[in-house]
Amino acid sequence: MSSFLKKRVRIVLVETSHPGNIGAVARSMKTMSLERLYLVNPLIYPSAEATSRASGADDVLAGAQVCRSLNEALEGCSFIVGTSARQRRIEWPLLSARECAQQVSHHASEGDVAIVFGRERSGLKNEELDLCHAMMNIPTSQDYTSLNLASAVQIVAYELFLSCSDIVMRDKDAEEKATHEQMEGFFSHLWEALVATEFLDPQNPGQLKRRLRRIYSRAHLTRNEVNILRGTLTSTLDKTKSL
Amino acid sequence: MSSFLKKRVRIVLVETSHPGNIGAVARSMKTMSLERLYLVNPLIYPSAEATSRASGADDVLAGAQVCRSLNEALEGCSFIVGTSARQRRIEWPLLSARECAQQVSHHASEGDVAIVFGRERSGLKNEELDLCHAMMNIPTSQDYTSLNLASAVQIVAYELFLSCSDIVMRDKDAEEKATHEQMEGFFSHLWEALVATEFLDPQNPGQLKRRLRRIYSRAHLTRNEVNILRGTLTSTLDKTKSL
Repeated sequence: MSSFLKKRVRIVLVETSHPGNIGAVARSMKTMSLERLYLVNPLIYPSAEATSRASGADDVLAGAQVCRSLNEALEGCSFIVGTSARQRRIEWPLLSARECAQQVSHHASEGDVAIVFGRERSGLKNEELDLCHAMMNIPTSQDYTSLNLASAVQIVAYELFLSCSDIVMRDKDAEEKATHEQMEGFFSHLWEALVATEFLDPQNPGQLKRRLRRIYSRAHLTRNEVNILRGTLTSTLDKTKSL
Repeated sequence: MSSFLKKRVRIVLVETSHPGNIGAVARSMKTMSLERLYLVNPLIYPSAEATSRASGADDVLAGAQVCRSLNEALEGCSFIVGTSARQRRIEWPLLSARECAQQVSHHASEGDVAIVFGRERSGLKNEELDLCHAMMNIPTSQDYTSLNLASAVQIVAYELFLSCSDIVMRDKDAEEKATHEQMEGFFSHLWEALVATEFLDPQNPGQLKRRLRRIYSRAHLTRNEVNILRGTLTSTLDKTKSL
Protein backbone atom coordinates (compact mmCIF):
# COMPACT_ATOMS: atom_id res chain seq x y z
CA MET A 1 0.00 0.00 0.00
CA SER A 2 2.93 2.31 -0.44
CA SER A 3 0.94 4.29 -3.04
CA PHE A 4 -0.56 6.09 -0.05
CA LEU A 5 2.89 7.22 0.88
CA LYS A 6 3.81 8.30 -2.62
CA LYS A 7 0.66 10.30 -3.29
CA ARG A 8 -0.62 11.52 0.03
CA VAL A 9 2.30 12.25 2.33
CA ARG A 10 4.28 15.49 2.03
CA ILE A 11 7.59 16.08 3.70
CA VAL A 12 7.86 19.83 4.28
CA LEU A 13 11.23 21.41 5.10
CA VAL A 14 11.14 24.95 6.45
CA GLU A 15 14.05 27.28 5.69
CA THR A 16 16.71 24.62 5.39
CA SER A 17 20.21 26.12 5.55
CA HIS A 18 22.39 23.36 4.13
CA PRO A 19 21.69 22.23 0.56
CA GLY A 20 23.37 18.89 1.29
CA ASN A 21 20.63 18.17 3.80
CA ILE A 22 17.94 18.74 1.18
CA GLY A 23 19.56 16.16 -1.10
CA ALA A 24 20.02 13.70 1.75
CA VAL A 25 16.35 14.13 2.71
CA ALA A 26 15.29 13.27 -0.86
CA ARG A 27 17.34 10.09 -0.64
CA SER A 28 15.95 9.19 2.79
CA MET A 29 12.43 9.67 1.45
CA LYS A 30 12.87 7.58 -1.65
CA THR A 31 14.25 4.57 0.22
CA MET A 32 10.91 4.47 2.05
CA SER A 33 8.62 5.17 -0.93
CA LEU A 34 8.00 8.84 -0.17
CA GLU A 35 8.08 11.26 -3.10
CA ARG A 36 6.41 14.56 -2.28
CA LEU A 37 9.00 17.03 -1.04
CA TYR A 38 8.08 20.66 -0.25
CA LEU A 39 10.74 23.29 0.42
CA VAL A 40 9.66 26.47 2.17
CA ASN A 41 12.20 29.22 1.47
CA PRO A 42 15.32 27.06 1.29
CA LEU A 43 18.47 29.15 1.79
CA ILE A 44 20.28 27.68 -1.22
CA TYR A 45 18.34 25.79 -3.88
CA PRO A 46 18.85 24.29 -6.39
CA SER A 47 22.47 23.35 -5.77
CA ALA A 48 25.04 20.84 -6.94
CA GLU A 49 25.56 19.67 -3.37
CA ALA A 50 21.88 18.79 -2.98
CA THR A 51 21.93 16.83 -6.23
CA SER A 52 25.09 15.00 -5.24
CA ARG A 53 23.73 13.96 -1.83
CA ALA A 54 20.41 12.89 -3.37
CA SER A 55 22.31 10.14 -5.18
CA GLY A 56 19.74 8.08 -7.11
CA ALA A 57 16.86 10.09 -5.65
CA ASP A 58 17.40 13.05 -7.96
CA ASP A 59 13.87 12.55 -9.34
CA VAL A 60 12.41 13.29 -5.89
CA LEU A 61 14.63 16.36 -5.66
CA ALA A 62 13.68 17.53 -9.17
CA GLY A 63 10.00 17.18 -8.30
CA ALA A 64 10.30 19.24 -5.11
CA GLN A 65 7.83 22.13 -4.74
CA VAL A 66 9.48 25.36 -3.65
CA CYS A 67 7.05 27.48 -1.63
CA ARG A 68 7.16 31.02 -0.33
CA SER A 69 5.27 30.27 2.86
CA LEU A 70 4.39 27.32 5.04
CA ASN A 71 0.72 28.02 4.35
CA GLU A 72 1.36 27.47 0.65
CA ALA A 73 3.04 24.12 1.33
CA LEU A 74 0.11 22.98 3.47
CA GLU A 75 -2.65 23.80 1.01
CA GLY A 76 -5.13 20.95 0.75
CA CYS A 77 -3.74 19.03 3.73
CA SER A 78 -6.19 17.64 6.26
CA PHE A 79 -3.65 16.40 8.80
CA ILE A 80 -0.45 18.24 9.70
CA VAL A 81 2.26 17.15 12.11
CA GLY A 82 5.05 19.44 13.29
CA THR A 83 8.34 18.07 14.57
CA SER A 84 10.18 19.32 17.60
CA ALA A 85 13.40 18.33 19.29
CA ARG A 86 12.26 19.83 22.52
CA GLN A 87 9.36 18.82 24.69
CA ARG A 88 7.50 22.03 25.18
CA ARG A 89 4.85 22.79 27.69
CA ILE A 90 2.01 22.78 25.28
CA GLU A 91 -1.40 21.39 24.74
CA TRP A 92 -0.82 19.47 21.51
CA PRO A 93 -0.79 15.74 21.50
CA LEU A 94 2.92 14.85 21.53
CA LEU A 95 3.49 11.77 19.42
CA SER A 96 6.52 9.55 19.21
CA ALA A 97 7.77 8.82 15.70
CA ARG A 98 6.01 5.47 15.82
CA GLU A 99 2.71 6.89 16.99
CA CYS A 100 3.03 9.63 14.39
CA ALA A 101 3.46 7.04 11.64
CA GLN A 102 0.36 5.22 12.77
CA GLN A 103 -1.71 8.39 12.77
CA VAL A 104 -0.32 9.64 9.48
CA SER A 105 -0.97 6.37 7.69
CA HIS A 106 -4.51 6.39 9.07
CA HIS A 107 -5.17 9.95 7.90
CA ALA A 108 -3.43 9.43 4.56
CA SER A 109 -6.13 6.95 3.63
CA GLU A 110 -8.57 9.87 3.70
CA GLY A 111 -6.62 12.88 2.46
CA ASP A 112 -3.32 14.69 2.13
CA VAL A 113 -1.01 14.76 5.10
CA ALA A 114 2.08 16.86 5.84
CA ILE A 115 4.99 16.30 8.21
CA VAL A 116 6.82 19.56 8.81
CA PHE A 117 10.52 19.77 9.75
CA GLY A 118 11.99 23.04 10.97
CA ARG A 119 15.31 24.81 10.59
CA GLU A 120 18.47 22.85 11.39
CA ARG A 121 19.40 25.03 14.37
CA SER A 122 16.17 26.43 15.66
CA GLY A 123 13.35 24.13 14.52
CA LEU A 124 9.85 25.46 14.03
CA LYS A 125 8.52 28.73 15.38
CA ASN A 126 5.44 28.82 17.57
CA GLU A 127 3.34 30.40 14.83
CA GLU A 128 4.34 27.53 12.54
CA LEU A 129 3.42 24.94 15.17
CA ASP A 130 0.07 26.71 15.47
CA LEU A 131 -0.81 25.38 12.01
CA CYS A 132 -0.33 21.74 13.09
CA HIS A 133 -2.79 19.20 14.46
CA ALA A 134 -0.17 17.29 16.41
CA MET A 135 3.47 17.40 17.35
CA MET A 136 6.03 14.68 16.97
CA ASN A 137 9.24 14.09 18.84
CA ILE A 138 11.81 11.46 17.93
CA PRO A 139 13.13 9.84 21.08
CA THR A 140 16.87 10.45 21.56
CA SER A 141 19.53 10.36 24.21
CA GLN A 142 19.01 13.10 26.75
CA ASP A 143 22.68 14.00 26.56
CA TYR A 144 22.75 14.60 22.82
CA THR A 145 19.57 15.30 20.91
CA SER A 146 21.16 16.71 17.76
CA LEU A 147 19.63 14.52 15.05
CA ASN A 148 20.69 15.50 11.58
CA LEU A 149 17.72 16.69 9.48
CA ALA A 150 17.99 13.85 6.95
CA SER A 151 18.37 11.35 9.80
CA ALA A 152 15.18 12.64 11.39
CA VAL A 153 13.34 12.34 8.08
CA GLN A 154 14.84 8.86 7.63
CA ILE A 155 13.47 7.61 10.95
CA VAL A 156 10.02 9.06 10.34
CA ALA A 157 9.96 7.70 6.77
CA TYR A 158 11.06 4.29 8.00
CA GLU A 159 8.29 4.18 10.60
CA LEU A 160 5.78 5.30 7.99
CA PHE A 161 6.93 2.65 5.58
CA LEU A 162 6.48 -0.03 8.23
CA SER A 163 3.11 1.23 9.37
CA CYS A 164 1.74 1.45 5.82
CA SER A 165 2.74 -2.07 4.94
CA ASP A 166 -0.34 -3.36 6.71
CA ILE A 167 -2.72 -0.48 6.20
CA VAL A 168 -6.36 -1.21 5.54
CA MET A 169 -8.60 1.02 3.48
CA ARG A 170 -10.84 3.09 5.71
CA ASP A 171 -14.54 3.43 5.53
CA LYS A 172 -15.39 5.74 2.64
CA ASP A 173 -18.37 7.14 4.53
CA ALA A 174 -16.09 8.71 7.09
CA GLU A 175 -16.63 12.44 7.00
CA GLU A 176 -13.98 14.43 5.26
CA LYS A 177 -11.64 16.35 7.50
CA ALA A 178 -11.43 20.12 7.12
CA THR A 179 -8.52 21.34 5.04
CA HIS A 180 -5.92 23.81 6.22
CA GLU A 181 -7.69 26.63 4.34
CA GLN A 182 -11.05 25.79 5.89
CA MET A 183 -9.51 25.85 9.34
CA GLU A 184 -7.90 29.22 8.69
CA GLY A 185 -11.28 30.56 7.50
CA PHE A 186 -12.85 29.28 10.71
CA PHE A 187 -10.19 30.93 12.87
CA SER A 188 -10.66 34.30 11.14
CA HIS A 189 -14.38 34.00 11.78
CA LEU A 190 -13.76 33.07 15.41
CA TRP A 191 -11.52 36.08 16.04
CA GLU A 192 -14.14 38.34 14.49
CA ALA A 193 -16.87 36.97 16.74
CA LEU A 194 -14.73 37.18 19.88
CA VAL A 195 -13.84 40.77 19.12
CA ALA A 196 -17.52 41.56 18.53
CA THR A 197 -18.45 40.10 21.92
CA GLU A 198 -15.53 41.99 23.47
CA PHE A 199 -13.95 38.80 24.76
CA LEU A 200 -10.89 39.43 22.68
CA ASP A 201 -9.08 42.74 22.61
CA PRO A 202 -7.61 42.90 19.09
CA GLN A 203 -4.90 45.25 20.34
CA ASN A 204 -3.88 42.85 23.07
CA PRO A 205 -4.79 39.25 22.30
CA GLY A 206 -2.14 37.79 24.62
CA GLN A 207 -2.04 34.00 24.47
CA LEU A 208 -5.75 33.60 23.88
CA LYS A 209 -5.67 33.10 20.13
CA ARG A 210 -2.93 30.52 20.38
CA ARG A 211 -4.73 28.60 23.09
CA LEU A 212 -7.98 28.58 21.16
CA ARG A 213 -6.18 27.49 18.01
CA ARG A 214 -4.71 24.55 19.84
CA ILE A 215 -8.06 23.41 21.18
CA TYR A 216 -9.66 23.32 17.75
CA SER A 217 -6.60 21.92 15.98
CA ARG A 218 -6.51 19.09 18.43
CA ALA A 219 -10.15 18.28 17.83
CA HIS A 220 -9.27 17.72 14.16
CA LEU A 221 -12.59 18.94 12.84
CA THR A 222 -14.52 17.60 9.88
CA ARG A 223 -15.87 19.98 7.25
CA ASN A 224 -19.37 19.59 8.66
CA GLU A 225 -18.18 20.42 12.12
CA VAL A 226 -16.45 23.55 10.87
CA ASN A 227 -19.75 24.55 9.29
CA ILE A 228 -21.62 23.99 12.53
CA LEU A 229 -19.11 26.03 14.53
CA ARG A 230 -19.18 28.81 11.95
CA GLY A 231 -22.98 28.73 12.26
CA THR A 232 -22.63 29.50 15.96
CA LEU A 233 -20.28 32.36 15.13
CA THR A 234 -22.57 33.82 12.48
CA SER A 235 -25.50 33.85 14.89
CA THR A 236 -23.32 35.51 17.53
CA LEU A 237 -22.21 38.16 15.05
CA ASP A 238 -25.77 38.77 13.84
CA LYS A 239 -26.86 39.27 17.41
CA THR A 240 -24.09 41.72 18.25
CA LYS A 241 -24.68 43.67 15.04
CA SER A 242 -28.34 44.10 15.93
CA LEU A 243 -27.28 46.06 19.01
CA MET B 1 19.02 1.07 30.30
CA SER B 2 21.09 3.13 27.91
CA SER B 3 24.30 2.13 29.76
CA PHE B 4 24.00 -1.23 28.03
CA LEU B 5 24.08 0.60 24.73
CA LYS B 6 27.02 2.77 25.70
CA LYS B 7 29.17 -0.02 27.08
CA ARG B 8 28.18 -3.17 25.28
CA VAL B 9 27.15 -2.36 21.72
CA ARG B 10 29.75 -1.79 19.00
CA ILE B 11 29.02 -0.31 15.62
CA VAL B 12 31.59 -1.72 13.20
CA LEU B 13 32.14 -0.09 9.79
CA VAL B 14 34.09 -2.11 7.24
CA GLU B 15 36.24 -0.30 4.64
CA THR B 16 34.18 2.86 4.54
CA SER B 17 35.03 4.98 1.46
CA HIS B 18 33.61 8.38 2.35
CA PRO B 19 34.98 10.07 5.47
CA GLY B 20 31.82 12.20 5.69
CA ASN B 21 29.88 9.00 6.31
CA ILE B 22 32.10 8.08 9.25
CA GLY B 23 31.40 11.42 10.91
CA ALA B 24 27.68 11.17 10.20
CA VAL B 25 27.64 7.65 11.71
CA ALA B 26 29.23 9.00 14.91
CA ARG B 27 26.50 11.60 15.12
CA SER B 28 23.75 9.04 14.44
CA MET B 29 25.15 6.81 17.19
CA LYS B 30 25.43 9.50 19.81
CA THR B 31 21.81 10.67 19.37
CA MET B 32 20.80 7.16 20.44
CA SER B 33 23.30 6.68 23.28
CA LEU B 34 25.76 4.52 21.36
CA GLU B 35 29.45 5.29 21.81
CA ARG B 36 31.63 2.41 20.67
CA LEU B 37 32.64 2.90 17.07
CA TYR B 38 35.05 0.51 15.30
CA LEU B 39 36.54 1.30 11.91
CA VAL B 40 38.00 -1.57 9.91
CA ASN B 41 40.46 -0.22 7.32
CA PRO B 42 38.71 3.07 6.58
CA LEU B 43 39.85 4.51 3.25
CA ILE B 44 40.45 8.00 4.63
CA TYR B 45 40.72 8.53 8.37
CA PRO B 46 41.06 10.76 10.31
CA SER B 47 39.75 13.59 8.16
CA ALA B 48 38.35 17.08 8.55
CA GLU B 49 35.20 16.05 6.70
CA ALA B 50 34.48 13.28 9.21
CA THR B 51 34.96 15.71 12.10
CA SER B 52 32.73 18.30 10.49
CA ARG B 53 29.89 15.83 9.86
CA ALA B 54 30.20 14.42 13.38
CA SER B 55 29.05 17.80 14.68
CA GLY B 56 28.81 17.53 18.50
CA ALA B 57 29.63 13.81 18.39
CA ASP B 58 33.34 14.41 17.88
CA ASP B 59 33.98 12.57 21.15
CA VAL B 60 32.55 9.38 19.67
CA LEU B 61 34.68 9.89 16.59
CA ALA B 62 37.81 10.57 18.65
CA GLY B 63 37.20 7.40 20.63
CA ALA B 64 36.83 5.25 17.53
CA GLN B 65 39.01 2.12 17.37
CA VAL B 66 40.77 1.72 14.05
CA CYS B 67 41.31 -1.99 13.28
CA ARG B 68 43.26 -3.82 10.64
CA SER B 69 40.78 -6.66 10.35
CA LEU B 70 37.14 -7.41 11.09
CA ASN B 71 38.31 -10.15 13.47
CA GLU B 72 40.17 -7.56 15.51
CA ALA B 73 37.05 -5.39 15.75
CA LEU B 74 34.95 -8.33 16.93
CA GLU B 75 37.27 -9.47 19.70
CA GLY B 76 35.33 -10.22 22.89
CA CYS B 77 31.89 -10.07 21.25
CA SER B 78 29.35 -12.77 22.05
CA PHE B 79 26.73 -11.75 19.52
CA ILE B 80 27.41 -10.37 16.05
CA VAL B 81 24.95 -9.19 13.47
CA GLY B 82 25.87 -8.44 9.85
CA THR B 83 23.83 -6.06 7.74
CA SER B 84 22.85 -6.59 4.16
CA ALA B 85 20.83 -4.61 1.65
CA ARG B 86 20.10 -7.74 -0.27
CA GLN B 87 18.31 -10.82 0.84
CA ARG B 88 20.74 -13.57 0.05
CA ARG B 89 20.11 -17.26 -0.16
CA ILE B 90 21.71 -18.08 3.08
CA GLU B 91 21.23 -20.07 6.23
CA TRP B 92 21.43 -17.22 8.69
CA PRO B 93 18.39 -16.00 10.53
CA LEU B 94 17.41 -12.84 8.63
CA LEU B 95 16.22 -10.22 11.09
CA SER B 96 14.40 -6.97 10.48
CA ALA B 97 15.92 -3.90 12.14
CA ARG B 98 13.34 -4.15 14.89
CA GLU B 99 13.94 -7.83 15.54
CA CYS B 100 17.65 -7.21 15.49
CA ALA B 101 17.28 -4.53 18.16
CA GLN B 102 15.34 -6.90 20.37
CA GLN B 103 17.95 -9.62 20.04
CA VAL B 104 20.85 -7.24 20.48
CA SER B 105 19.42 -5.69 23.62
CA HIS B 106 18.80 -9.17 24.99
CA HIS B 107 22.36 -10.31 24.28
CA ALA B 108 23.90 -7.05 25.48
CA SER B 109 22.72 -7.88 28.97
CA GLU B 110 25.15 -10.80 28.89
CA GLY B 111 28.14 -9.57 26.91
CA ASP B 112 29.52 -7.46 24.10
CA VAL B 113 27.59 -7.23 20.88
CA ALA B 114 28.59 -5.95 17.42
CA ILE B 115 26.54 -4.75 14.49
CA VAL B 116 28.62 -4.78 11.32
CA PHE B 117 28.02 -2.48 8.35
CA GLY B 118 29.72 -3.12 5.00
CA ARG B 119 31.16 -0.99 2.24
CA GLU B 120 28.95 1.76 0.77
CA ARG B 121 28.76 0.13 -2.65
CA SER B 122 29.26 -3.56 -2.10
CA GLY B 123 28.31 -4.34 1.49
CA LEU B 124 29.88 -7.26 3.34
CA LYS B 125 31.69 -10.16 1.72
CA ASN B 126 30.60 -13.72 2.35
CA GLU B 127 33.64 -14.45 4.49
CA GLU B 128 32.76 -11.45 6.65
CA LEU B 129 29.17 -12.63 7.01
CA ASP B 130 30.56 -15.98 8.09
CA LEU B 131 31.66 -14.29 11.32
CA CYS B 132 28.11 -13.26 12.19
CA HIS B 133 25.43 -14.97 14.26
CA ALA B 134 22.58 -13.35 12.38
CA MET B 135 21.90 -11.08 9.46
CA MET B 136 19.82 -7.97 9.47
CA ASN B 137 17.99 -6.24 6.66
CA ILE B 138 16.36 -2.83 6.94
CA PRO B 139 13.04 -2.83 5.08
CA THR B 140 13.01 -0.38 2.16
CA SER B 141 11.13 0.37 -1.01
CA GLN B 142 11.72 -2.34 -3.61
CA ASP B 143 12.34 0.32 -6.24
CA TYR B 144 15.13 2.09 -4.39
CA THR B 145 17.07 0.34 -1.66
CA SER B 146 20.03 2.72 -1.52
CA LEU B 147 20.11 3.67 2.16
CA ASN B 148 22.96 5.97 3.06
CA LEU B 149 25.37 4.32 5.53
CA ALA B 150 24.70 6.83 8.32
CA SER B 151 20.95 6.53 7.67
CA ALA B 152 21.17 2.76 8.06
CA VAL B 153 23.08 3.15 11.33
CA GLN B 154 20.56 5.77 12.43
CA ILE B 155 17.61 3.42 11.97
CA VAL B 156 19.32 0.54 13.75
CA ALA B 157 20.48 2.81 16.59
CA TYR B 158 16.98 4.23 16.92
CA GLU B 159 15.44 0.76 17.17
CA LEU B 160 18.07 -0.23 19.72
CA PHE B 161 17.43 2.87 21.76
CA LEU B 162 13.70 2.15 21.83
CA SER B 163 14.14 -1.48 22.69
CA CYS B 164 16.50 -0.64 25.54
CA SER B 165 14.45 2.03 27.20
CA ASP B 166 11.00 2.54 28.51
CA ILE B 167 10.80 6.09 27.40
CA VAL B 168 7.96 8.09 28.68
CA MET B 169 7.29 10.58 25.95
CA ARG B 170 4.64 12.55 27.76
CA ASP B 171 5.16 15.99 29.05
CA LYS B 172 5.22 15.83 32.82
CA ASP B 173 4.04 19.41 33.12
CA ALA B 174 0.90 18.65 31.17
CA GLU B 175 -1.99 20.57 32.62
CA GLU B 176 -4.64 18.68 34.45
CA LYS B 177 -7.47 17.49 32.29
CA ALA B 178 -10.99 18.71 32.98
CA THR B 179 -13.17 16.40 35.03
CA HIS B 180 -16.47 15.01 33.86
CA GLU B 181 -18.34 17.53 36.06
CA GLN B 182 -16.35 20.42 34.63
CA MET B 183 -17.15 19.31 31.10
CA GLU B 184 -20.84 19.02 31.92
CA GLY B 185 -20.78 22.53 33.41
CA PHE B 186 -19.19 23.75 30.21
CA PHE B 187 -21.80 22.06 28.02
CA SER B 188 -24.69 23.58 30.01
CA HIS B 189 -23.07 26.96 29.61
CA LEU B 190 -22.61 26.35 25.87
CA TRP B 191 -26.27 25.41 25.34
CA GLU B 192 -27.35 28.51 27.22
CA ALA B 193 -25.20 30.75 25.03
CA LEU B 194 -26.34 29.09 21.80
CA VAL B 195 -29.98 29.51 22.76
CA ALA B 196 -29.34 33.16 23.61
CA THR B 197 -27.83 33.78 20.18
CA GLU B 198 -30.74 31.86 18.63
CA PHE B 199 -28.41 29.32 17.01
CA LEU B 200 -30.00 26.53 19.00
CA ASP B 201 -33.75 26.02 19.23
CA PRO B 202 -34.25 24.45 22.68
CA GLN B 203 -37.50 22.84 21.48
CA ASN B 204 -35.79 21.23 18.53
CA PRO B 205 -32.05 20.77 19.04
CA GLY B 206 -31.77 17.93 16.49
CA GLN B 207 -28.27 16.47 16.31
CA LEU B 208 -26.50 19.72 17.08
CA LYS B 209 -25.84 19.16 20.75
CA ARG B 210 -24.46 15.70 20.10
CA ARG B 211 -22.13 16.95 17.40
CA LEU B 212 -20.83 19.79 19.52
CA ARG B 213 -20.31 17.42 22.42
CA ARG B 214 -18.18 15.18 20.25
CA ILE B 215 -15.98 18.02 19.09
CA TYR B 216 -15.14 19.15 22.60
CA SER B 217 -14.87 15.66 24.03
CA ARG B 218 -12.41 14.74 21.36
CA ALA B 219 -10.28 17.76 22.19
CA HIS B 220 -9.85 16.36 25.73
CA LEU B 221 -9.74 19.80 27.33
CA THR B 222 -7.67 20.90 30.28
CA ARG B 223 -9.24 22.83 33.15
CA ASN B 224 -7.69 26.04 31.94
CA GLU B 225 -9.05 25.54 28.47
CA VAL B 226 -12.56 24.99 29.85
CA ASN B 227 -12.20 28.28 31.70
CA ILE B 228 -11.13 30.08 28.53
CA LEU B 229 -14.03 28.67 26.55
CA ARG B 230 -16.48 29.54 29.33
CA GLY B 231 -15.05 33.06 29.24
CA THR B 232 -16.07 33.35 25.58
CA LEU B 233 -19.57 32.12 26.49
CA THR B 234 -19.94 34.58 29.36
CA SER B 235 -19.02 37.51 27.13
CA THR B 236 -21.51 36.32 24.50
CA LEU B 237 -24.27 36.04 27.11
CA ASP B 238 -23.46 39.47 28.57
CA LYS B 239 -23.72 40.96 25.11
CA THR B 240 -27.07 39.35 24.32
CA LYS B 241 -28.51 40.30 27.70
CA SER B 242 -27.68 43.94 27.08
CA LEU B 243 -30.11 43.89 24.14
